[in-house]
Amino acid sequence: MTDPINRALLPAGLHDVLPREAAFEATIVEKLMAEFALNGFDRVKPPLIEFEASLLSGPGAAMATQTFRLMDPVSQRMLALRPDMTLQVARIATTRLANEPRPLRLSYGGQVLRVKGSQLRPERQFGQVGVELIGTLLPTADAEVVLLAYRALDAVGVNNISVDLNVPTLVPAVCRALDLPDDETARLRQALDRKDAAEVAAVGGKAADLLASLMRASGPADRAVELLAALDLPEAAEGDRQRLTEVVRLIRAGAPRLMLTVDPVEHRGFEYQTGISFTLFSRGVSGELGRGGRYRAGARKPGSQGEPATGFTLYLDTVLRAVPDPAPSPRVFLPLDTQESDGARLRSEGWVTVRALESFDEPAAEARRLHCTHIFTGGGILPAA
Amino acid sequence: MTDPINRALLPAGLHDVLPREAAFEATIVEKLMAEFALNGFDRVKPPLIEFEASLLSGPGAAMATQTFRLMDPVSQRMLALRPDMTLQVARIATTRLANEPRPLRLSYGGQVLRVKGSQLRPERQFGQVGVELIGTLLPTADAEVVLLAYRALDAVGVNNISVDLNVPTLVPAVCRALDLPDDETARLRQALDRKDAAEVAAVGGKAADLLASLMRASGPADRAVELLAALDLPEAAEGDRQRLTEVVRLIRAGAPRLMLTVDPVEHRGFEYQTGISFTLFSRGVSGELGRGGRYRAGARKPGSQGEPATGFTLYLDTVLRAVPDPAPSPRVFLPLDTQESDGARLRSEGWVTVRALESFDEPAAEARRLHCTHIFTGGGILPAA
Repeated sequence: MTDPINRALLPAGLHDVLPREAAFEATIVEKLMAEFALNGFDRVKPPLIEFEASLLSGPGAAMATQTFRLMDPVSQRMLALRPDMTLQVARIATTRLANEPRPLRLSYGGQVLRVKGSQLRPERQFGQVGVELIGTLLPTADAEVVLLAYRALDAVGVNNISVDLNVPTLVPAVCRALDLPDDETARLRQALDRKDAAEVAAVGGKAADLLASLMRASGPADRAVELLAALDLPEAAEGDRQRLTEVVRLIRAGAPRLMLTVDPVEHRGFEYQTGISFTLFSRGVSGELGRGGRYRAGARKPGSQGEPATGFTLYLDTVLRAVPDPAPSPRVFLPLDTQESDGARLRSEGWVTVRALESFDEPAAEARRLHCTHIFTGGGILPAA
Repeated sequence: MTDPINRALLPAGLHDVLPREAAFEATIVEKLMAEFALNGFDRVKPPLIEFEASLLSGPGAAMATQTFRLMDPVSQRMLALRPDMTLQVARIATTRLANEPRPLRLSYGGQVLRVKGSQLRPERQFGQVGVELIGTLLPTADAEVVLLAYRALDAVGVNNISVDLNVPTLVPAVCRALDLPDDETARLRQALDRKDAAEVAAVGGKAADLLASLMRASGPADRAVELLAALDLPEAAEGDRQRLTEVVRLIRAGAPRLMLTVDPVEHRGFEYQTGISFTLFSRGVSGELGRGGRYRAGARKPGSQGEPATGFTLYLDTVLRAVPDPAPSPRVFLPLDTQESDGARLRSEGWVTVRALESFDEPAAEARRLHCTHIFTGGGILPAA
């Protein structure tokens, strides 16, 4: 590890973010966080590492295989590097902020680490920003977080945003109501995940027709709601249908131009979700911008239901791919004899200033060498070109 | 780890940052980073973990005992969680940005982790922001980073800022020039660290008088420069004296009201510094706001001198203690029937809006319960009290 090439090598999935891109990323994060804050979501900041026993218990267990662990020489206990921030924020809400009034609105932004990248997201470190809305089951809460995600992404310049609404509890409710055995349900899930209509018909037994109808209902939200309304659903699935219908209505009212679809049989990636969930996309941009939905906050104590909660996480790597590149800032070169007060005035006008450290016979050439677009002279600012 | 109290427990030195404080911290970070960017320092973002062999080689070895390590199942190599960002930024400068013109100005902000807290800083995770100015030995560069640190701290509201300039190479140069044996030099260093004049006199041998004079020169910069000028220093120390004198002159010219002191014998905490170094304080605030100074970037290759560089790191925990608390934002409660467009308008005017999720007979009482200062009615905004 002694030559420059090798020193530059980082572990797979870890990257240096270089000038321009690093500043741009930080700007997008702060704009998103500002939008969350303006909507009453107060920022919290959990630590990068926690006790493994705390971070990976309950719903966190689903992330155990993706989590870096390390030994703490101080406590002699195992620590875990957070693979996700949602459960940390839920922990804060249900412990330190247990006495704050509900609904509780929290936001967060930070880096997470995963042991292995996925095919879709090879990065092992990436930024997350998001919100959690804790302590209410009302459909207005489901709509609020979807609309907030949409508004925040729109505010940073993401175009062609679409939201896919899911109800990961619906298929299990149907299967239970029709008394399907567990192994049949598991095979059905796999067939539904592959959108394999023939296999669903083959293994679905008495649920086959209904599940085929649910699959066909996938698509634009208004049509999906109409098709679902016409289905003869078991009573146990009625709550899911009503809630979905109401949430679609509220989102359509709040953002009439948002592309909204419904996939009532999707459940992948919603392993700890307990109700209406959603995924955010930008047409033409690969990967998800983010996802969110209902869960129970603080449900780790045996026998405890936890608090109803919903929220979303945005994945910064995808968001950055969906946002137009920023224009470079004009940079003005300040020759050695420039007064401090002139530099301060230029910066207050928004110029990036680059000070000369010595005097140059041809300051304009030096300005160009340092990527400056302009040069300051006693009289004013001239193009460096 | 199943009851709420225990779940809230974090490892020693790790903390949840709660509402208000977390937002405030983020605001201060972005204001500091904005000041760096306006002065031409481009942001970079290295990863939280790197190969141990890369992060802890060369000057990084000084931080080895403070660094968390973990196994990477992908590469089967040891990784290290960064205890500091300066060396990462130097690595980026000398590898990925090796072909960018010099002087190269880079800035960074992020979290670092240490295995153990110190008595002065019990936190094991804290935020760092800073800059590096790479590829120049000019004293104007030393002055530029000191002045930038001062201006950035001043811009975020830190009062009574003082800078203590040090020359950690001066005492070793004196001891070498006077041919002091290594063990005597080591004992002298310890005595100087304790500012123990009697011990310095006892163990200093032929360097005793000169070192006593150097100790007495500590204090306000103008006086220190005057006293140093009168000393009969060995030729090998002459470069340090001249540079210090010039840097003091440049800083006094750029910031006449900055409290500037010089301690020519201090070297603690400057283990990898190679010239003019400095520590930033705010009178009445315990701990250092930050520190910086000269080092060699990319000097890990055996036989390579690396590039001359200087820079500084600010410690966010101390900076936050030195800044007045922000005023709470006014929050306005939006009853259920509020139009989206009214909410958007209020937010564009800077109001934090909190949406009702259901209708209330007494919306003002609900507004107060949710810590809102105001309530929106069709007609306008009223105090919630």
